[in-house]
Amino acid sequence: MAIMSTPTTFRPVLERIAEEIERTPGSGRPADYIPALAARDPRRFGMAVAEPDGTVYGVGDWREPFSAQSITKVFTLALDLAREGDALWEHVGREPSGNPFNSLVQLEYENGIPRNPFINAGALVVTDRLHTRTGDAAGELLAFLRAESGNPDLTHDEEVAASEAAHGDRNAALAHFMASYGNIDNPVPVLLEQYFRQCSVTASCADLALATGFLARHGIRADGTRLLSRSRAKQVNAVMLTCGTYDAAGDFAHRVGLPGKSGVGGGIIAVVPGHCTLCVWSPGLDERGNSVAGVAALDRFTTLTGLSVF
Amino acid sequence: MAIMSTPTTFRPVLERIAEEIERTPGSGRPADYIPALAARDPRRFGMAVAEPDGTVYGVGDWREPFSAQSITKVFTLALDLAREGDALWEHVGREPSGNPFNSLVQLEYENGIPRNPFINAGALVVTDRLHTRTGDAAGELLAFLRAESGNPDLTHDEEVAASEAAHGDRNAALAHFMASYGNIDNPVPVLLEQYFRQCSVTASCADLALATGFLARHGIRADGTRLLSRSRAKQVNAVMLTCGTYDAAGDFAHRVGLPGKSGVGGGIIAVVPGHCTLCVWSPGLDERGNSVAGVAALDRFTTLTGLSVF
Amino acid sequence: MAIMSTPTTFRPVLERIAEEIERTPGSGRPADYIPALAARDPRRFGMAVAEPDGTVYGVGDWREPFSAQSITKVFTLALDLAREGDALWEHVGREPSGNPFNSLVQLEYENGIPRNPFINAGALVVTDRLHTRTGDAAGELLAFLRAESGNPDLTHDEEVAASEAAHGDRNAALAHFMASYGNIDNPVPVLLEQYFRQCSVTASCADLALATGFLARHGIRADGTRLLSRSRAKQVNAVMLTCGTYDAAGDFAHRVGLPGKSGVGGGIIAVVPGHCTLCVWSPGLDERGNSVAGVAALDRFTTLTGLSVF
Amino acid sequence: MAIMSTPTTFRPVLERIAEEIERTPGSGRPADYIPALAARDPRRFGMAVAEPDGTVYGVGDWREPFSAQSITKVFTLALDLAREGDALWEHVGREPSGNPFNSLVQLEYENGIPRNPFINAGALVVTDRLHTRTGDAAGELLAFLRAESGNPDLTHDEEVAASEAAHGDRNAALAHFMASYGNIDNPVPVLLEQYFRQCSVTASCADLALATGFLARHGIRADGTRLLSRSRAKQVNAVMLTCGTYDAAGDFAHRVGLPGKSGVGGGIIAVVPGHCTLCVWSPGLDERGNSVAGVAALDRFTTLTGLSVF
Repeated sequence: MAIMSTPTTFRPVLERIAEEIERTPGSGRPADYIPALAARDPRRFGMAVAEPDGTVYGVGDWREPFSAQSITKVFTLALDLAREGDALWEHVGREPSGNPFNSLVQLEYENGIPRNPFINAGALVVTDRLHTRTGDAAGELLAFLRAESGNPDLTHDEEVAASEAAHGDRNAALAHFMASYGNIDNPVPVLLEQYFRQCSVTASCADLALATGFLARHGIRADGTRLLSRSRAKQVNAVMLTCGTYDAAGDFAHRVGLPGKSGVGGGIIAVVPGHCTLCVWSPGLDERGNSVAGVAALDRFTTLTGLSVF
Repeated sequence: MAIMSTPTTFRPVLERIAEEIERTPGSGRPADYIPALAARDPRRFGMAVAEPDGTVYGVGDWREPFSAQSITKVFTLALDLAREGDALWEHVGREPSGNPFNSLVQLEYENGIPRNPFINAGALVVTDRLHTRTGDAAGELLAFLRAESGNPDLTHDEEVAASEAAHGDRNAALAHFMASYGNIDNPVPVLLEQYFRQCSVTASCADLALATGFLARHGIRADGTRLLSRSRAKQVNAVMLTCGTYDAAGDFAHRVGLPGKSGVGGGIIAVVPGHCTLCVWSPGLDERGNSVAGVAALDRFTTLTGLSVF
Repeated sequence: MAIMSTPTTFRPVLERIAEEIERTPGSGRPADYIPALAARDPRRFGMAVAEPDGTVYGVGDWREPFSAQSITKVFTLALDLAREGDALWEHVGREPSGNPFNSLVQLEYENGIPRNPFINAGALVVTDRLHTRTGDAAGELLAFLRAESGNPDLTHDEEVAASEAAHGDRNAALAHFMASYGNIDNPVPVLLEQYFRQCSVTASCADLALATGFLARHGIRADGTRLLSRSRAKQVNAVMLTCGTYDAAGDFAHRVGLPGKSGVGGGIIAVVPGHCTLCVWSPGLDERGNSVAGVAALDRFTTLTGLSVF
Repeated sequence: MAIMSTPTTFRPVLERIAEEIERTPGSGRPADYIPALAARDPRRFGMAVAEPDGTVYGVGDWREPFSAQSITKVFTLALDLAREGDALWEHVGREPSGNPFNSLVQLEYENGIPRNPFINAGALVVTDRLHTRTGDAAGELLAFLRAESGNPDLTHDEEVAASEAAHGDRNAALAHFMASYGNIDNPVPVLLEQYFRQCSVTASCADLALATGFLARHGIRADGTRLLSRSRAKQVNAVMLTCGTYDAAGDFAHRVGLPGKSGVGGGIIAVVPGHCTLCVWSPGLDERGNSVAGVAALDRFTTLTGLSVF
């Protein structure tokens, strides 16, 4: 990290990135499996940086709420790890999947244990276990996000959740399949309702950059209490780096070089351990489900600042 | 990297690790597919750290030569990237494989393009391309390792190479299979000979820690010339982190948190970008082909020093 | 068919087989995934032959009702083909699966179109389509079986159906997965209820040998009306021969050489086109889900009578 | 087999089929992986029927030699079974593959034991074993075909064999892969030379219909000696029916309803056990490697004569 920027130099970097992105509109397309996502304008773009002390600033649509979707998997993972610790890893692996994010193939060959917590199957296991431990996984998530972002209005989008449920056959298949191996505790319909509510969280770049702060602070929450041990916070970053961007984790590590997690709503969060967290949003996705402008913006950020874990 | 140790404090760390390893002999077993590897004592242990300026020190059998095997894949990758650049990525991917290191399955589903340069299929492609560009891939590798380590005696082990060739049906299958997709340039027997010679390189922890130095120096060789651009050196580190330890890359990232590359000879190299490189050796392997004591030692190193990319 | 027996010689053949089976108790075990099946004595054995004119006779427990399970897939296939004809084949294939009977893998690679109507996924598609066309697939099946067997008491076992439903996660996964590809018409819970009722049909060897008669009569029902054209009856026999015994169809063709269909209740039906139909029952299953004594008895039958399609 | 034709009525049937085929030129294309096959006119068509007593007659190009290719797998299977009996089945299975004919995937999941003797991997195993037992597998095959067909001029096409060898990477991969599991006895280059010579046999419809006669005669050769027991001849027919037409065995059984084996030269042999054998040839292939006009002609034959095993 030889070319380390001081935080105050992030602003011009963000402005330069926003200009570049605006000049080269991406080729991505919004997720189209539910209407609420398909309707977003793919040219929207926002980016925020949060410093460990809670300072946050951004460019473009950085205060515009969007559907967090799979980004929420980072937070449910952290919340469940905080409660049950390593016992979780008997129910979900932490290896890259080498397959598209909703694949059933690997699940079948590996007896109902999903490869990692960020493919859909693994996220269902995490939510299932968090729900068993809290009685309200989606509510627990919401409370956490509100507290960390300082935004009490942050909430679920019931329309998105209903729409996900109406198109939820693939996730229902995953949940029933794992249940057939004894790897799901709650009734499948209960789990799916929790899961779809979780994914429907609507938040802005500012909200999510702030909420990710505990991973830059080595496990410490915004109020100074500890959520995860230093070692466990490091582990979450490791899982993000190796598994956070679906079937493109290697490419993301190669281009961006930061732990990151994307969602089909077009958002991506990223962590510079010890320094800052980022969230970028633009709804146009590539064929692997990651925001085209989002990945490009993070690529430029690490190139311009020299901030990368490698 | 808040708890950063100064280099001079590495010595006591290494000594402490060596003591711990000695007290808890690992359960691993040497690779047994060729006699030359099977004969090594699994309790042997050595570890070396090299600083960017070329200072190197170690503990245990850190000056004992061992069979580098797959560790050489990092160097052929760097040497080929230095020559042909991004064109390489049209012939080999950079995503984790999610399958054991010699799997043909993914290769078939993806039309002869290996997932990454560190599974055997991908390493064969890299060696094939380097051989086309240099006329002597194994010789090019040897020259590089000698120059970086400053050890002119470093060489191939012809007995190991012959033994690999005699047990080489799986690699021959991989090479012919990719050739059927047009992804191999040289005649398969020529390629295999180069590949087995490459894998048979014998070097010590000291040699390999020094030879890896260009990845801590962001692409600069020992003599100050540039092998790779900063961006490309970062990319090699990224591929190591996501794909460097066979089917255990996620677990290695989780425990150790450094770019690393293992070999079935029991060696592992690792990089702390900007700070140092490490090489550890102990012949006892776990069921995924990584040195048991080697992973444990690197795990302790990052825990004790706080040096991790996360 | 050079050594053709006359029908009247079948009796001593059946008696001889029953004696042999009794002397060599099989090594099979009853299906244990639901209590109602697990409780059956694996040494029970019955076998019936039905001639095209409706004459039926048997040995052992040939009048004992047992759970027909997957044997019912032959009848729903025929009933749906009779209604929609070749349009069915756009929704389910007719190739052997090369995988265990409840595999999701092939389904994923082939976009939700099951390989054939006798793996669970394919049978779900057939029942779904029959239900759409009749409003009561399980009832339609029951009416057909009663009419063909002349047994008005033949019925569903509600306890078995409930037990299947309670252990139905794998089938629920299959149904939701195909629904995600648009290959299921009815709501998944409706389909599953129909499917579990269908599988719970309880019938004897006599009943099922008679009910299979239309396949020996080239499509003609017991009352002389035509269910299927000659060509289509031949096709159902072909699918039974290539796909009727789960992952052991090749072995069954090799040993027995007749179109056949097995169920995890321990029953197997078989057809000698133009000559007779058979049903054998013994609850002990081999590891691929076929009745050990049942396959052995059919093997002996074709060897002793020379009746085989090859 | 109710509508059984007497042999003398086959002539008008063949003529009618030839007329129909001529009126509806198929959409198939010749195999193009080697020049010698690609050059054949896809509109060529021939068909021969051989009766058990050695009478043979035909229509169209039924005396024109063509490349037998995979049709030879039936004869090497029979020749090896005649020598080693059931021991063969420990080295190759007899289940349909459910995958394209040269797939490595299933081979990997099943530890180097090919699914059946008609996929390329399985045919390599059979040739390997026959070569070990005879010292000249390809010569043994040639002697058998000459004797059965009564055609002493029947021979290998050395140009085709050389061309196969020049494009043989996929088969080399299969052979090396199985060798890595210990399932190949001979050196891979020796095996491949035998295999490519075997596939290069050039013969006419008349030759191949006659050579297949032993399968209609329940194991008896043209000279009245026994090659296979009745039971084993039946088994070869069973394997042909379930596995003889690559990934289309179910469809072929469904349409044609006879044991059959196709080759990429455009030929198909078929057996009506106890009655006759057929060979049809037309070079245009469908996407699964079977002759379009050939399958259509056999379909018409069984429809017009009522001869089908079902």
